[in-house]
Amino acid sequence: MNDEAFVVPGFKASAVSAGLKKDGGLDMALIYCEVEAVGAGVFTTNKVKAAPVILSKEHIRNGKVRAIVANSGNANACTGDQGMSDARDMALIVAQQMGVSEEEVLVCSTGVIGLPLDMSKVRDAIPKLANGLSEDRLMDAARAIMTTDTFPKLSYREAQIGDRPFRVAGIAKGAGMIMPNMATMLCFILTDIEIDAETLSKSLSGVVDRTFNRITVDGDTSTNDTVLIMASGLAGNGKLSESDEKLFVNALEEVASDLATMIVKDGEGATKLVRISVKGSPDQESASKAARTVANSLLVKTALYGNDPNWGRIMAALGRSEIPVRQDSVDIWIGNIQIVSKGLGLGEEAEHRAAEVMKQKRYELIIDLNQGQWEDYMWTCDISHDYVSINADYRT
Amino acid sequence: MNDEAFVVPGFKASAVSAGLKKDGGLDMALIYCEVEAVGAGVFTTNKVKAAPVILSKEHIRNGKVRAIVANSGNANACTGDQGMSDARDMALIVAQQMGVSEEEVLVCSTGVIGLPLDMSKVRDAIPKLANGLSEDRLMDAARAIMTTDTFPKLSYREAQIGDRPFRVAGIAKGAGMIMPNMATMLCFILTDIEIDAETLSKSLSGVVDRTFNRITVDGDTSTNDTVLIMASGLAGNGKLSESDEKLFVNALEEVASDLATMIVKDGEGATKLVRISVKGSPDQESASKAARTVANSLLVKTALYGNDPNWGRIMAALGRSEIPVRQDSVDIWIGNIQIVSKGLGLGEEAEHRAAEVMKQKRYELIIDLNQGQWEDYMWTCDISHDYVSINADYRT
Repeated sequence: MNDEAFVVPGFKASAVSAGLKKDGGLDMALIYCEVEAVGAGVFTTNKVKAAPVILSKEHIRNGKVRAIVANSGNANACTGDQGMSDARDMALIVAQQMGVSEEEVLVCSTGVIGLPLDMSKVRDAIPKLANGLSEDRLMDAARAIMTTDTFPKLSYREAQIGDRPFRVAGIAKGAGMIMPNMATMLCFILTDIEIDAETLSKSLSGVVDRTFNRITVDGDTSTNDTVLIMASGLAGNGKLSESDEKLFVNALEEVASDLATMIVKDGEGATKLVRISVKGSPDQESASKAARTVANSLLVKTALYGNDPNWGRIMAALGRSEIPVRQDSVDIWIGNIQIVSKGLGLGEEAEHRAAEVMKQKRYELIIDLNQGQWEDYMWTCDISHDYVSINADYRT
Repeated sequence: MNDEAFVVPGFKASAVSAGLKKDGGLDMALIYCEVEAVGAGVFTTNKVKAAPVILSKEHIRNGKVRAIVANSGNANACTGDQGMSDARDMALIVAQQMGVSEEEVLVCSTGVIGLPLDMSKVRDAIPKLANGLSEDRLMDAARAIMTTDTFPKLSYREAQIGDRPFRVAGIAKGAGMIMPNMATMLCFILTDIEIDAETLSKSLSGVVDRTFNRITVDGDTSTNDTVLIMASGLAGNGKLSESDEKLFVNALEEVASDLATMIVKDGEGATKLVRISVKGSPDQESASKAARTVANSLLVKTALYGNDPNWGRIMAALGRSEIPVRQDSVDIWIGNIQIVSKGLGLGEEAEHRAAEVMKQKRYELIIDLNQGQWEDYMWTCDISHDYVSINADYRT
C-alpha cells in the first residue's frame, strides 16, 4: 500500500530514536492535529495504572485533544510520584513546543516497568519530533511504539457520508511482552470525520468492546493499555444522522478489528490466530464467559500449538467457566469439521480431518451449546515454546 | 521409609496392570476396608463431570464405604450413557467380588477423555485385584493411579488420642496432564480413627480447602478431581472431644498438605515449587483472589522459570485481581529479600540477590498489601518449555 493512502486530513506524525530502547531503534512518536480535535479514550481496567494512563485519563475528560506523545522502552509504571511528574513534564514540553495547552496533550508509555524515565533523553527528543512532523509518517509512529512486536501495525479505511469521503487510520502495538515486563496494548486512531465528543466516545467504547476486548494472548492485562481516538472534523460532513453514525462505526470497527487480530497474530511466540466462537448460549454473559475461558485455557492453547483437536480440554474449560452448560448438548467444530456431537466425540476420522484444518495459520473453533440464541467470540493464539523462551529468558 | 509404616488397621490395597495404559504399567487399584468404614468425599466443581464422579457422589451420600476402585489410562469422561453404565458396572463387579453392597463401592477414573472404557479388561482385572489385596500395598496403589506423574505420592502420619495411636495415610496423583487430556487430581486417604460421618466430612472439607484448593499448576480444573477419605474406626478412640478433633484435623492436614505440594512439585514440566503468600489484606476474599491471580499468571510463572524477580508482573497481576489494591502500599519479598517497598522497586542489587533465591527448588514469594490483617496463600509452580512440549506434542 502506498504511504500516501494513510493521510488523514489535519494530522501529522513523526518518530525519532531518543535512546530509550537499547537497540537504538525508533522509540518516541508524536501525533499532532493542526486543528482542535475531538478526542476519546479507553484505558486499562488494571487497578495498578501507569502514570501516563492516569494523566491521559485526566486530560481527555474535556474531549479536546491536539497531540499524543508516546514512547517505547520504558512504561513509566510503578514509578511513584517521580513517574507522575515525568508524565506531566512530557505533556508540558510538547505543549510548549507546539503552542497548545498542556491539557490537550495525551501521553502513552510502554516498555520496562519500575524504572524512571530518562527525562533528559525525552526532553532532547521532543523538538526533533516537532520538526519531523509530516502528513505521511504514521507508519514510522507505528514503528516507534513497537516493543517485542515483530511487525508494525497499521490499518486504514475510507468511506463516504453523502458525497463526503472520510478516513479512519489506526496504529497499534501489541501484546508482545514488553521486555522485561508485561503485555501492553496501545492503539491510536485518527479520523477526519466531523463528530461530537459524546458520539465519538460512545462509538469508540462499543468498537473496543467488540475488538480489543475480544482478544487474548495470555490473559494478563497491562497497567498501560490505552486506545485513543482523535477526530479532526475536516471531512466537513456536518451533523451525523443515525445511518451516518453507523457508517462511521463500521469503518472504525474494521480498522480496530484489523489491528486487534494483528496483535493476536503477533502474540509472543504465537504461530496461529484462532477465533473461538460460542453459539446457542442461554444468555449473552454465558456466551462471553465460555468464549473467554476456552480462549484463555493454557491446555487449549497448547493443543492449538500441537494441532491437536483435543476436545476434552474444551469440554473441561466449558465446565469450569461458571456457565450453566449441559454437557450432553454441546457440539464442537474445528473449521467445518464437526468433532463433538451432543457432548460425545465423533471419532478418529473426524479428529484426523480436524487436525488438518488446525495446520492453517488462521481458523475458527465453533462451540454450539444448543441452549439458546446468544453468541459471542474471542480471538486467541497458541502458546508455543517461544512464548516460554521470550518470557523466561530475557535476562540470560 | 519402611513399607510397613504405611499400614492402617482395617485397610488392604492392591494394584494390577489391566492393560488400560499403553505402556503396560500398573493401571488399576483397589482399596478395601475389612469393616464398614465411614467415608466422605470432595469432588470437582467442574460442571462437566466424569461418570465415576457422578456415581461416587451418589454412593458416598450415606457415609458408608467398603471399597474404592480406581483406574488410570481412561478418564471415563464425556462418555455419555455408556460411561455411566460402565462406572456402575465397575462398582457392581467389585461389590459382587468382595461380597459388599454396590452403594459401598466408590469409583475413580483418570486418563484419556472421550473414549469408552475397555470393560472386558476392567472385568478381568477385578478378581486379580481382590486376590492381591494386602495390608502393605498402598504404594502400589499410588503407582497404579499415576498418569504423567513422575513419582508416586504417599504421605503418612501417626498421632495419639489419649493413649490410643491412630494413623492417617494418603495417596494422590497429580496435575501432571493426563495424556492426552487434562489435569486430574485424585487423592485417597485412609485412617483408623473412630469418627462419625458428619465430623469426618466437615474435617475433610476444611482440610481440602486449605491444601488441595490452594494449589495450581495451570489454572484448569479437571472433570474428574476427587478426594476421598475412609475411616475404619479400629483405633478405638471412642467419642472425639473438641481437642481430639483438632489432633485428627492436624494429622489429616499434614498428610493432605504433603500430597498437595507433591502434586505441584510434579506439575508437568515444573522445575520449582513456590508459595505465594499474601499478607496485609483488607479482607479474606481479597487475600485469596490476590494469591490466586498471581499464582495463575502465565507471566509470573514464566518469570519463576527464568529466575527473574520481575515484580512488575506481580504488580500487574495484583492490579487485575479485582481487589482494592493500593499500589503505593505494596511490599514484595522473594524469600527474605525485599524487592519492592511501597510499590517501588528497590533496585538492581536487591533484584540480583532475589534472583539467587529463585535458583532454589522451593521458596516463598511474599506480598504485603499493608491494607489490613488478612492473609492467604497458594502453592504454584513455574511454566517451562517442557510444559508446552508435554501438552502440545503428545501425538507427534
